[in-house]
Amino acid sequence: MRSAVVVGTGLIGTSLALALSAKGVTVHLRDADPIAAHTAASLGAGSVEPPDAVVDLAVMAVPPALVGTVLADAQAEGVARHYTDVASVKRGPQDDAVAQGCDTVRYIGGHPMAGGERSGPTAARADLFEGRAWVLTPTPDTATETLNTALELVVMCGATPVVMGAAEHDRAVGLVSHAPHLVAALFALRLARAEERAVSLAGPGVRDLTRIAGGDPALWTDILSANAGVVADILDEVAVDLDDAVAGLRALAATDDAKHAEGRRRMDLLLHEGRAGRKRVEGKHGTRPARYRTVGVLVGDQPGQLARLFADADRSGINIEDIHLEHSAAQLTGVVRLSVEQRGAATLEETLRGQGWRVQ
Amino acid sequence: MRSAVVVGTGLIGTSLALALSAKGVTVHLRDADPIAAHTAASLGAGSVEPPDAVVDLAVMAVPPALVGTVLADAQAEGVARHYTDVASVKRGPQDDAVAQGCDTVRYIGGHPMAGGERSGPTAARADLFEGRAWVLTPTPDTATETLNTALELVVMCGATPVVMGAAEHDRAVGLVSHAPHLVAALFALRLARAEERAVSLAGPGVRDLTRIAGGDPALWTDILSANAGVVADILDEVAVDLDDAVAGLRALAATDDAKHAEGRRRMDLLLHEGRAGRKRVEGKHGTRPARYRTVGVLVGDQPGQLARLFADADRSGINIEDIHLEHSAAQLTGVVRLSVEQRGAATLEETLRGQGWRVQ
Repeated sequence: MRSAVVVGTGLIGTSLALALSAKGVTVHLRDADPIAAHTAASLGAGSVEPPDAVVDLAVMAVPPALVGTVLADAQAEGVARHYTDVASVKRGPQDDAVAQGCDTVRYIGGHPMAGGERSGPTAARADLFEGRAWVLTPTPDTATETLNTALELVVMCGATPVVMGAAEHDRAVGLVSHAPHLVAALFALRLARAEERAVSLAGPGVRDLTRIAGGDPALWTDILSANAGVVADILDEVAVDLDDAVAGLRALAATDDAKHAEGRRRMDLLLHEGRAGRKRVEGKHGTRPARYRTVGVLVGDQPGQLARLFADADRSGINIEDIHLEHSAAQLTGVVRLSVEQRGAATLEETLRGQGWRVQ
Repeated sequence: MRSAVVVGTGLIGTSLALALSAKGVTVHLRDADPIAAHTAASLGAGSVEPPDAVVDLAVMAVPPALVGTVLADAQAEGVARHYTDVASVKRGPQDDAVAQGCDTVRYIGGHPMAGGERSGPTAARADLFEGRAWVLTPTPDTATETLNTALELVVMCGATPVVMGAAEHDRAVGLVSHAPHLVAALFALRLARAEERAVSLAGPGVRDLTRIAGGDPALWTDILSANAGVVADILDEVAVDLDDAVAGLRALAATDDAKHAEGRRRMDLLLHEGRAGRKRVEGKHGTRPARYRTVGVLVGDQPGQLARLFADADRSGINIEDIHLEHSAAQLTGVVRLSVEQRGAATLEETLRGQGWRVQ
């Protein structure tokens, strides 16, 4: 890929334009708002001059609802050999493209799984996509050459391509991103309505559960809006299991022995399957985890503790996969939980104990 | 407090016996299993010899269902001036104590909010309760002297006392501990049943949401069993909000403009209240947070990065409130998110940038 047009110079468009420019691609920037395009250009994302020949790739970095129209216009103009977009849902834009009579042979949907709390070109970074998954959703007739051009874009941005169908993509992000946000918010509702004394007993568990509910409501209403039906279907399934769980708990609360045993069996099944599901998203690098163990280390509140801890942990030569800092109510000391591969846990513990740390 | 009897030398009983012994209290250990009592004694938790006079405090460190009987026996024997327990639910044991005709003037319920993944005396640690909340639940007629003796126990163990009623306690732990575990497990069920490709897109959000679902199912069935009715009530409330959320999403998915706007309004309300609830459990020290900001720093996968990062962060003099390590699918680099008080964020960012870190 030598040349590209980026239509829409918001956070995502400008970031990928920065990444492509850094790799020597000639990037032409367009935006309905000329100030945004000029801002992106001034940041080194490319030029606001129109291309004087057909470019290799045009990227529609516009909101989901506009992808179909903007793609149809760009194709009518014949600006590029291949076309993609970066909208966070894929089925609506693909349906729109078909409805607008777009050439779906030269088009492939795309969704880089990255974003930021701020929007607009000034929030853009060339490394926004580094190490992130970037889903590509071919239409039934996308050309191999178009797929390969999109793959080149993904790799140039430092992301990892994942190919799937548009509907499959929307279900997947509904499951791993949109529905989790709502579930966290739904439980956080209970905290909003609780008495202060109850909330004061909150520990790391409920903090983990509700962390993502801290996101911007307006932004999340937009996100949910674009995939609302899919998320509703997932939550309907959650509701069925929730009813089941309540029935299991009511049985568990029964004084009747047979009923209690039945409740115990049901909860045990649910918790076992839940643990199996949790295991599928543990660890990093997208692979099934080797098997992690958590090493808890007591740390004080004074400065320098964390730096000293991680310096000492380094001496063990064990790679730390995850960090988790726990404080409970009114606590002056905390526990840092370090997740490491099981076989390295003993070495890490020994090293830390040798350096005077209190390891749990 | 100069002398105590600890009935039950499991994790909790042995840990508090170790803490009391370390403070110079004469501790007498009892357990239905003499090997457990001897093991605890050999660890320095106290003596297995019976006391030769009435002790200051007897602690029933036995399962919730046994508290009433064991308390009645100990009081009939007249072993102590004051009595408490450490069961993780409080209403059942208190009702049992009343039903068994116990002296509720000299008894106060207790629940140290600490535990561990392993059980039994060998897992015990004198610092198990350090910095943790320890709920005390007086009966309607608990004597002030009994409350004060229990407070002495809590402070000797390094914990922070919180006084509330038994039923209020059970609702509070149902809300901040038991129900969250089930909600995490319920969502993890969906992951258990999902296709591998969908799960491969999982990022830090859904990992946070489901983290606690990784707990031991048998242990959690026991915990839920002791508070099942309360947890069922909380989940019933969640189910009502969940139905509401699904209705909101269906409206949001509608093509009809008025319906869509109504869906948007409902989701926005839900997400706003959810965010407010989340804010109540943010931060540490049990206080309402000053206002935190998150600073994201890109780190590589090579050893030494975290140590260097925290050493550099220390130079800023800004206290780090929380740490969060993010990796997405197939990622070789990660983002460490450092939560700090808002007023310190700029200083931290500046310091880290000055040391060559890529700050988001």
